[in-house]
Amino acid sequence: MLESSLLAQLIAFRKDRDWEQFHTPKDVAISLSIEAAELLEWFQWRNHDEVEAMLESDKREHLEDEIADVAVYLSYLCHDLGIDLNQAVKKKMEKNAAKYPPDKVKGRADKYNEYS
Amino acid sequence: MLESSLLAQLIAFRKDRDWEQFHTPKDVAISLSIEAAELLEWFQWRNHDEVEAMLESDKREHLEDEIADVAVYLSYLCHDLGIDLNQAVKKKMEKNAAKYPPDKVKGRADKYNEYS
Amino acid sequence: MLESSLLAQLIAFRKDRDWEQFHTPKDVAISLSIEAAELLEWFQWRNHDEVEAMLESDKREHLEDEIADVAVYLSYLCHDLGIDLNQAVKKKMEKNAAKYPPDKVKGRADKYNEYS
Amino acid sequence: MLESSLLAQLIAFRKDRDWEQFHTPKDVAISLSIEAAELLEWFQWRNHDEVEAMLESDKREHLEDEIADVAVYLSYLCHDLGIDLNQAVKKKMEKNAAKYPPDKVKGRADKYNEYS
Repeated sequence: MLESSLLAQLIAFRKDRDWEQFHTPKDVAISLSIEAAELLEWFQWRNHDEVEAMLESDKREHLEDEIADVAVYLSYLCHDLGIDLNQAVKKKMEKNAAKYPPDKVKGRADKYNEYS
Repeated sequence: MLESSLLAQLIAFRKDRDWEQFHTPKDVAISLSIEAAELLEWFQWRNHDEVEAMLESDKREHLEDEIADVAVYLSYLCHDLGIDLNQAVKKKMEKNAAKYPPDKVKGRADKYNEYS
Repeated sequence: MLESSLLAQLIAFRKDRDWEQFHTPKDVAISLSIEAAELLEWFQWRNHDEVEAMLESDKREHLEDEIADVAVYLSYLCHDLGIDLNQAVKKKMEKNAAKYPPDKVKGRADKYNEYS
Repeated sequence: MLESSLLAQLIAFRKDRDWEQFHTPKDVAISLSIEAAELLEWFQWRNHDEVEAMLESDKREHLEDEIADVAVYLSYLCHDLGIDLNQAVKKKMEKNAAKYPPDKVKGRADKYNEYS
């Protein structure tokens, strides 16, 4: 997912701090879901126009940090479980494509909702 | 994050179905957090040994699918907001490195907990 | 939180199935957050008008079921940890009232956002 | 769910601050899921013994505050949607009881996992 040199840096970061011991797959999955909630918090109580304005403000950096946190835990999880993320996404998209043929679901919110 | 050809495929997938209209940044962030919870659900009620056994079983594919779903929404969000994920992670890791010098936090769960 | 006879029923439900063994506080907290995500899923991709329409439709029962699931895990957690929920909310509301005096925060989204 | 006088206090709290305007059902559901993640954060990286020790420490109050936050948003949501939580839980438990007869699922983690 991330550049390989950056992934190597993440791995070194936790090794240098002797923090691998905390990274069971279950605890990393917990952390990923907590970080996803913190990312969502950035949008909390905001309507579309307010979000657009915040994206142009100095609050953008905070959003980028939250997105980075999600990516970091996702990268640790894939690394630790030996999952090739590109491969996993490819396989999932093939299933999605078979399940949702464009001509049957185009622009339909109901189908989209079933999909997601 | 993903290979550029795969990201192009994701973008085409939603365009072919006329589904961009549903993808406001806030709704994509909601979806990311829902998918992270579905990923966590794979680990629900399982202890470490049970997780290890499931990783070797045919339940592994389900886990990979859930991880793929998280990656898909993360990719849409970064694409739509013009965020370079490698860049965002680099900046965040610099902050983390400054905040948690190895000699002060090594192997300490309390510091790790503050960190995360 | 729930009527005491209903709470007794929840406790009997898991005892009759010998399921207390799975209910560590951490796993119940995981389940609570998963159920909260499933509740949120009901609202996923919907705008305000669509939500209002769904509330009047036969999809309302599904929402009530998801809300019930959240309440069930919250009730188990409070029961198992010996927490009086009314008491906990009272104490938290006192802190909130001290932190957010009406004359300083009235109608201000920015203060509201700091608050939540 | 909460004592009726306490619920009245919650309703007054947001009215006094003119904050009802932010409380669409969807945004309250978002907040509920964020608070559930913050509750889960209390357990993050902790094993069972560490959780037990924290429950006896001065960190317990923080946990009670997070549980209160979940209950507050759950209460607002039920109030705003006119949902009787006891009634909703009763109906859900009837469905669960029909779906999981004790003699078929007793002590079985696999059935429990299907259940949750």
